Amino acid sequence: MIRPQNLVAGIWQEVSGTAVFQTVNPRTNTPLPTLFQEASSAQIDEAVQKAAAVFDVYSTTTFHQRSAFLKAIQQELEEIKEELLKQYQEESALPEGRAQGEFDRTQGQIQSFAELLDQGTYVQPIISTQGPDLRKMLHPIGPVAVFGASNFPLAFSTAGGDTISALAAGCPVIVKAHPYHAGTSALVAEAIHKALIACELPLAVFSHLGGVSHDVGATLVSHPLLKGVGFTGSFRGGKALYDLAQQRAEPIPVFAEMGSVNPVFILENRVLKDESLAPTLGQSICLGTGQFCTNPGLVLFCDPSGKSTLFNRVLQELQKSALPPMVHDSIEKNYADKLKELQRNQGVRLARVDQNSAVLGFVEAAVVLEQPELVEEVFGPFSLFVRCKSMEEMQAAAAALPGQLTATVLFDKEEMTQATPLMNILKSKVGRLLFEGVPTGVAVTQAMQHGGPYPASTDGRYTSVGTDAIYRWLRPVAYQDCPNALLPEPLQNENPLSLMRIVNGKQTNTKL
Amino acid sequence: MIRPQNLVAGIWQEVSGTAVFQTVNPRTNTPLPTLFQEASSAQIDEAVQKAAAVFDVYSTTTFHQRSAFLKAIQQELEEIKEELLKQYQEESALPEGRAQGEFDRTQGQIQSFAELLDQGTYVQPIISTQGPDLRKMLHPIGPVAVFGASNFPLAFSTAGGDTISALAAGCPVIVKAHPYHAGTSALVAEAIHKALIACELPLAVFSHLGGVSHDVGATLVSHPLLKGVGFTGSFRGGKALYDLAQQRAEPIPVFAEMGSVNPVFILENRVLKDESLAPTLGQSICLGTGQFCTNPGLVLFCDPSGKSTLFNRVLQELQKSALPPMVHDSIEKNYADKLKELQRNQGVRLARVDQNSAVLGFVEAAVVLEQPELVEEVFGPFSLFVRCKSMEEMQAAAAALPGQLTATVLFDKEEMTQATPLMNILKSKVGRLLFEGVPTGVAVTQAMQHGGPYPASTDGRYTSVGTDAIYRWLRPVAYQDCPNALLPEPLQNENPLSLMRIVNGKQTNTKL
Repeated sequence: MIRPQNLVAGIWQEVSGTAVFQTVNPRTNTPLPTLFQEASSAQIDEAVQKAAAVFDVYSTTTFHQRSAFLKAIQQELEEIKEELLKQYQEESALPEGRAQGEFDRTQGQIQSFAELLDQGTYVQPIISTQGPDLRKMLHPIGPVAVFGASNFPLAFSTAGGDTISALAAGCPVIVKAHPYHAGTSALVAEAIHKALIACELPLAVFSHLGGVSHDVGATLVSHPLLKGVGFTGSFRGGKALYDLAQQRAEPIPVFAEMGSVNPVFILENRVLKDESLAPTLGQSICLGTGQFCTNPGLVLFCDPSGKSTLFNRVLQELQKSALPPMVHDSIEKNYADKLKELQRNQGVRLARVDQNSAVLGFVEAAVVLEQPELVEEVFGPFSLFVRCKSMEEMQAAAAALPGQLTATVLFDKEEMTQATPLMNILKSKVGRLLFEGVPTGVAVTQAMQHGGPYPASTDGRYTSVGTDAIYRWLRPVAYQDCPNALLPEPLQNENPLSLMRIVNGKQTNTKL
Repeated sequence: MIRPQNLVAGIWQEVSGTAVFQTVNPRTNTPLPTLFQEASSAQIDEAVQKAAAVFDVYSTTTFHQRSAFLKAIQQELEEIKEELLKQYQEESALPEGRAQGEFDRTQGQIQSFAELLDQGTYVQPIISTQGPDLRKMLHPIGPVAVFGASNFPLAFSTAGGDTISALAAGCPVIVKAHPYHAGTSALVAEAIHKALIACELPLAVFSHLGGVSHDVGATLVSHPLLKGVGFTGSFRGGKALYDLAQQRAEPIPVFAEMGSVNPVFILENRVLKDESLAPTLGQSICLGTGQFCTNPGLVLFCDPSGKSTLFNRVLQELQKSALPPMVHDSIEKNYADKLKELQRNQGVRLARVDQNSAVLGFVEAAVVLEQPELVEEVFGPFSLFVRCKSMEEMQAAAAALPGQLTATVLFDKEEMTQATPLMNILKSKVGRLLFEGVPTGVAVTQAMQHGGPYPASTDGRYTSVGTDAIYRWLRPVAYQDCPNALLPEPLQNENPLSLMRIVNGKQTNTKL
């Protein structure tokens, strides 16, 4: 059942006098029936206050307790799967296959954090007994706010990577639900709530607040007891939260993943020889109606003769992909506005195969070098193709790019030497550098880096995908000359959890 | 020879038309002869531009090359030791033993980073071949600015932990010298410069800029090509740099360690029984004329009967320590002003044994709970003793504290149970929690955490002491499906450096 209320520290609280809002089916543009309530200031305050009050208890639960909690969330989600995927599709217009895929990804992510907890070494115990007895490990930072992302109603939303990594770390979470899929979000919130009950954990560990107004998020981020923020969305939204958080009496970290154009660089021989480029790029551009933060929005190809057919071949591929509408008409409108703006640019040629297809732009690298604003993200099924006359021009274009989540470098075997300087430039610009395939598709493994230098993310030192995402919610505490009985288990002499630890510079899982 | 110029990308540049300044011998209050030149905007720009230009080359030097460079710095410092320590003492008034000790600490720090490089695992190679081939490791962030600290002219200054950890990481460094020890700083800068020459590294890897005006630092931190900042000093100075860095078009991390009162909590039985408390605390309060960021500026002791003689006994101890002047009369003046302010407070009783001794304050915990501003740092040889009538009062005082570098909890064996709730409160407030001794004395080991929650530091997730300080200057880059020949050595199949790596979740140093 979809709850229209806000879940405040364990209670779905009715509130009167605040605004209500509805979600919309983007296929039919008709509002869905539930009247969701905007969270009041009092509710926001109560959610954070109570999260802070249970922090001591929740942060000192065992790895096993938190792992069991994550598995209980999986189970609760499994129970409501049918209703959840139905609501997901109604609110997002994303197709059934995608709904199913994103559900599986969400469950897989939860699984990976449960396994991380079962292992326990993520707290990085370091013991030094030469000199004073010093023992350091990571501790959770405190209550965390998570903002659901419009484009991934499950995997980057209420029980997505931000929430689950923070809960795994031992941080209570207050979710600000994304208003475009408030129903999907409320269903997931109820699942997490039930998992807390099943595991007999304090219910204030998880709250779920709704709202269309930016005030809800702003009040939440400004709350003095909040200790961190996770966000996936637009540059404007992420930067606004970041600035708010820095202006607090106590600044707090904001991990905002704000998207990027994910440039794809293709060297001359590869452009000429690789027949599979066009279908691969075409599919990647259309994926999720272009609503992926790793969408290849910029394709730079080396074509000195000007005879490459790559652009036209990719254009033809776009005919094959039926594009469902975007997740909300406001996103659709932004997309249309950005295209209109590009259309007015003399240097850019726009092309599409029909009114419902993705759009491609074509521009000479020289134009991009003069108008660097051309490489700004057009969120949607669009990619700007940049023809480079030489590797020098391609390198210059690379050097002018702002921070990116990813960059891709495609070359033929014999071109490896030419690719090296390009790679060295890009290394300082991205979180992930690909040498095959396309940037869409972000594997959930420990080696993943999803987060790049500013403005791709507010803090490129951290990832929001993969198990290393847990490090966003942890900080080290060192214990000096602490009696063994008072030490947290990972640091005790007996090593009761048999963790791998660094003891006087050496990796070991033995006792002291 | 002390150079009065600025060292800009390898050249001691004469500049005309800017202000000059002198350092002062704090014992005699007489200016020392050298007329140091304030760095011009053009010099600052050139230093950062050229540092950015050599970043590619320097960041891709091998571990061995950077380790050899650090060892060459050690050697160059050894060569000028006599002149350096003489200048150090003249500019700081700190005694010879301290000068010698800080020199040794500085050399030891350099040694520990050289060893870290010899080992190489600090880049944390993580390889995942299940799914796409993903390989992640840490890369340096780019040119870094380091601000010398007034209170540690060697160990937290020009070749101190910030500079050395950044150079070890592969980041060029631009030092803004502290004007109170500009001569000491210039000597060290010349040593680093010579080490660069000896190692045939690009000279723009290190620049050294002088200035009394805040403009030099502000211009440096605002430079668009700068990527990070290290600072140790006052809250006002650190926060100003932090705000500047956040307001840039591209915000950059600022690691400012801004001091703290380092509360010491002593439980009832320990207060009664431990005779050694008074001499230990007395010495710690006087150390370096109170100019330690870990100075125990707040002592909370549980004394329900009000009969404890601890305060008077510590006061007597202060007679034994001859206090040299503080490192600069402006610091001395700030200290005197803060004491005057405290003197006007009806609830606080100030005491000293003679005009040149350290000062103690006495206050009831109830007063502190009503006037939380009383726990703000008084930088200098001062400590505020807070009498707590009960453990509840002590816990309430602990809960009201802002973030701290350290806290110390001292108790008698039988009091361990009472200490536990206090410890749980403090864990969220500090970077390091001590259970014996005093907070002064910060061991340089991997398990050290020198950095606490705001306002003790701007980023309590990082340490500025110990080898983990290197992580301030690194961020992860993931390589997807990268040809083996293009991978950085730590990620190559052959594991040519025999590093310990995480491969598909398992620690191993074997090849793939």
